[in-house]
Amino acid sequence: MNTCTERARYAETDQMGVVHHSVYLFWMEIGRTELLREEGLSYHEMESRGVMLPVSKLGCKYISPCYYDDVVEICSAATLLTRVKLRVDYKIYRKSDKALLFEGYTEHAVLDKESRKIMRAPEWFQERVMLEEDFQNRI
Amino acid sequence: MNTCTERARYAETDQMGVVHHSVYLFWMEIGRTELLREEGLSYHEMESRGVMLPVSKLGCKYISPCYYDDVVEICSAATLLTRVKLRVDYKIYRKSDKALLFEGYTEHAVLDKESRKIMRAPEWFQERVMLEEDFQNRI
Amino acid sequence: MNTCTERARYAETDQMGVVHHSVYLFWMEIGRTELLREEGLSYHEMESRGVMLPVSKLGCKYISPCYYDDVVEICSAATLLTRVKLRVDYKIYRKSDKALLFEGYTEHAVLDKESRKIMRAPEWFQERVMLEEDFQNRI
Amino acid sequence: MNTCTERARYAETDQMGVVHHSVYLFWMEIGRTELLREEGLSYHEMESRGVMLPVSKLGCKYISPCYYDDVVEICSAATLLTRVKLRVDYKIYRKSDKALLFEGYTEHAVLDKESRKIMRAPEWFQERVMLEEDFQNRI
Repeated sequence: MNTCTERARYAETDQMGVVHHSVYLFWMEIGRTELLREEGLSYHEMESRGVMLPVSKLGCKYISPCYYDDVVEICSAATLLTRVKLRVDYKIYRKSDKALLFEGYTEHAVLDKESRKIMRAPEWFQERVMLEEDFQNRI
Repeated sequence: MNTCTERARYAETDQMGVVHHSVYLFWMEIGRTELLREEGLSYHEMESRGVMLPVSKLGCKYISPCYYDDVVEICSAATLLTRVKLRVDYKIYRKSDKALLFEGYTEHAVLDKESRKIMRAPEWFQERVMLEEDFQNRI
Repeated sequence: MNTCTERARYAETDQMGVVHHSVYLFWMEIGRTELLREEGLSYHEMESRGVMLPVSKLGCKYISPCYYDDVVEICSAATLLTRVKLRVDYKIYRKSDKALLFEGYTEHAVLDKESRKIMRAPEWFQERVMLEEDFQNRI
Repeated sequence: MNTCTERARYAETDQMGVVHHSVYLFWMEIGRTELLREEGLSYHEMESRGVMLPVSKLGCKYISPCYYDDVVEICSAATLLTRVKLRVDYKIYRKSDKALLFEGYTEHAVLDKESRKIMRAPEWFQERVMLEEDFQNRI
């Protein structure tokens, strides 16, 4: 599991005065990038090695609004569902009061960059992706 | 049910050479805006009348990639789940070959703009939201 | 010169209650895409033929705010400054009251897609780019 | 003068394989937010006190491309041009090789949040904005 932080940008607010719901997708993306980096798997390097992880499915709940300039903590945990499918679960908190703002997950196909076809996750990938069976409250 | 079209912007692509997965959230937003407009409920006017519809939940599947300059057809259908909760379902197709690219739904709380508290959907809202029981293949 | 229209998205507003200043860059991008299309030069096709036009410089003035759901008219005009440099000028109006909201320009290098080096604009490109000397009030 | 860092997001790349030119506007926004924070003027707090700083003008040059996962250093310096107009200058570097990627400036009107009219910058604001006459190579 990885925790990283981001700060809500002004451009990310909307006229409701809160962070727009699409921004959480960027935060999930940052979360899994940092999660992979922590496992020694820079996503940048993965693409260079010919492996892509496009999002195939996602789901999420918006629990409490986030405001401009709030610092959020993005908690991410990955599971290799099958040898061709990865799932990442996320919880996003406001740092100042630890309020849970958001829960979500993404599913990813493991894709060969050249052929754009589904491939088995390489060994070096399988070894490093944590099988976090116990990440609570999956949506 | 409403169908509207959008064209994929260059800025909306990513280095995979496809439209980034977050863009579909903007397209869903456009779809429901046009759906409400068709029902005579401009979302702009709704906010002026003190009703907001923030996204409380969403789910989606990415079926086939979308490319720069593709024209997409966004099909949207709304259901009032309860008097305080709205659901909208979406299917997004590429116009040129009618390929189904994306299926998704959003759920919305009906919120009073001043108090930011959940409110019962006003009568004028309830009357106009289609109860489309038969929109196929909900996710 | 080309005129095309876009509608301001909810996601494009910020907590000031107006369209965020970055959105005009997307609108300029749409403007020049449609300008090139009108000249028979789809930018999509140009990239396929190995020519890219990255933005090298831009400048703009924000004259009047744009609001959610406003329809804007994007007026764009191109000039080939040199054989390796293109300039596009833009004016953006609100359609309903013809208010001028924004003036801007972008400059583009003509780049070979493979080498990422500056190249002379191909003949088929030079022939089609209008030399609109008289586009008023350049910034 | 303030220096802060950001990391280029995957969503911020485009199909040219580089960070989209609009992203630098978000980075300039982050730069001036951190600059003001350093001066003890959280922009968040400023808005609460009724002062807004919308962008009225901007200009920039794109010098070298930025890639996914690059860490950039955003250097920002503010000048109060008049009592109703602020200018901020920016230089953005890639952290790893110190390559200069981008130079730009923004101009801001000082606006009363309620009336949306131009106002004189309050004393507490004037005192804190650095008059950095010597920020080099203004565009």
